[in-house]
Amino acid sequence: MHITILGGAGFLGRKLAAWLATEGALGGRPVSSLTLFDLAAPPPPEGAPFPVHSLAGDLAELPAAAIPPGTEVVFHLAAVVSAAAEADYELGRRVNVRGTDAVIDACRRLTMPTRVVFTSSVASFSGGQGAVLEDNARQVPANSYGAQKAAAELFLADASRRGMLDAVLIRLPTVVVRPGRPNKAASSFVSSILREPLLGLPATLPVPDEFAVWICSPRRAVDWLLHAAAMDTGPMGLDRGVNPPGMSATVGEMLQALDSVRPGASALVERRPDPAIAAIVGGWPAAFNPVRAPALGFAPHESLAELVQAFVDDDLENTQLERNAG
Amino acid sequence: MHITILGGAGFLGRKLAAWLATEGALGGRPVSSLTLFDLAAPPPPEGAPFPVHSLAGDLAELPAAAIPPGTEVVFHLAAVVSAAAEADYELGRRVNVRGTDAVIDACRRLTMPTRVVFTSSVASFSGGQGAVLEDNARQVPANSYGAQKAAAELFLADASRRGMLDAVLIRLPTVVVRPGRPNKAASSFVSSILREPLLGLPATLPVPDEFAVWICSPRRAVDWLLHAAAMDTGPMGLDRGVNPPGMSATVGEMLQALDSVRPGASALVERRPDPAIAAIVGGWPAAFNPVRAPALGFAPHESLAELVQAFVDDDLENTQLERNAG
Repeated sequence: MHITILGGAGFLGRKLAAWLATEGALGGRPVSSLTLFDLAAPPPPEGAPFPVHSLAGDLAELPAAAIPPGTEVVFHLAAVVSAAAEADYELGRRVNVRGTDAVIDACRRLTMPTRVVFTSSVASFSGGQGAVLEDNARQVPANSYGAQKAAAELFLADASRRGMLDAVLIRLPTVVVRPGRPNKAASSFVSSILREPLLGLPATLPVPDEFAVWICSPRRAVDWLLHAAAMDTGPMGLDRGVNPPGMSATVGEMLQALDSVRPGASALVERRPDPAIAAIVGGWPAAFNPVRAPALGFAPHESLAELVQAFVDDDLENTQLERNAG
Repeated sequence: MHITILGGAGFLGRKLAAWLATEGALGGRPVSSLTLFDLAAPPPPEGAPFPVHSLAGDLAELPAAAIPPGTEVVFHLAAVVSAAAEADYELGRRVNVRGTDAVIDACRRLTMPTRVVFTSSVASFSGGQGAVLEDNARQVPANSYGAQKAAAELFLADASRRGMLDAVLIRLPTVVVRPGRPNKAASSFVSSILREPLLGLPATLPVPDEFAVWICSPRRAVDWLLHAAAMDTGPMGLDRGVNPPGMSATVGEMLQALDSVRPGASALVERRPDPAIAAIVGGWPAAFNPVRAPALGFAPHESLAELVQAFVDDDLENTQLERNAG
């Protein structure tokens, strides 16, 4: 089977490509080739037992080679993230909306409905700290990124209904611990307060310790993407979106888990309230009650301490090397 | 105040223009000028006490003159309707989505946030005959028109949050009795079975008599649009959409109301099941429980007999004249 990863240079895209290179198969079937697409040509994963094609370009002007004939699975992870989409309305619309339309148009040209696994976001909901959202909660976004993701969900679900493609839309929690550097996501601090101290570096916390966030680990996010790529979509009906089983944790609980893995590390976190960041993330719901996703086979979450330990095991060394090289 | 009606040649646009021409004011303030925009230049309303500019064009390439500087209210009624958007995916996307983006971009260029009154649709929901939808029901559309309307809602609500404009999104029920001729809306039959017999003409009914529809009269739809143009949007918060207080009626009840206004008229209705029509309208919810809209001042609905009588009073003669002319 041929697989394409859009946003293949991002950290989830790279983890997904590395997983496919190691396993050589998806859903029990061998991978015959892999195409990676991003603004800059993504690096191919090491040791892949199949050919890897890396392409660079603009998602809204998606080249036909990005989703070639015979593509069976497209992981559509490419996005302009929350703070960036808030700062540049045109850019967010171009990538998050027009880009998704380009993916639909590319899939329409193929003969079989391609499985499209799309990363939507918790940012497409509002509700704030007090909310515990059920599976049928309305998406009333409090930011442009969330509005664009929710609209992209509508277009992908409609295209699925029409048989143009076969989408599964995963509303990812805030992914923690992200490797690499802080980025323009308003939620960037949630990873920074764990990652930077583990690197021996200071981090700033723009919200109070009791601030709760709906999170998941990169390991679990990759698991969910892989499950979505191979699952039976028949039981989903018209509703192609799932709220996966993440976990709700306060910043204080995350710092406790940090100290349980690396005693004293949380001393590197400086409290410095930032009203602009708080205004964006404060509108995101702090908890969900996912029932449908577990029933559809999406795996439950591990503990906070396991989440911190997973970063140490999977990403700490590489992140350290990249920092030293940069 | 300057007002623009996009979709000014449609039946709701014409009724709205006629109302403004008669009243000369909106929300207690005089109308200084009116711009009408549609695929073909809309006819100006008779006797308007203000200048009327008629423009023709493509909504997705909206000319700047359609929403000139100083525009205080835009009624955005232009759309590719349900069966047409289902038949031509590109056309629906172009008008219903790109067209709405063009409206947002035109409003962004103005100095004050323009009130944009947008007609969304009951077709953006699914649920079918058994459903009674609450105000917080998720929009899970079962057709491309509904998906495009729901996405347009997201973009207009986000633009409102950003201060680019100030939108009120009305999810109109199926409007009954529509004047004129049958159109490409899948729901066209709901008006035909009342209008055609009142004209002495036969009509076909593609669904069973017990099929229920969420409806409103043109009078009430115009009332709601006018209310939305002048209301205080402060209490709406992030959620700019309302499910207005229409009414749920079965086809059988509508035919009874027809006979109460014109005894024996329902004999002109021929039952002829149409699975394609039934498949589209069968996914639309038959009833809502609107609480928010009445609290925001949207007027409740009149009776079915009043709805039929209103067509006789307002539209029968003109419809007859147009048929004879055509």
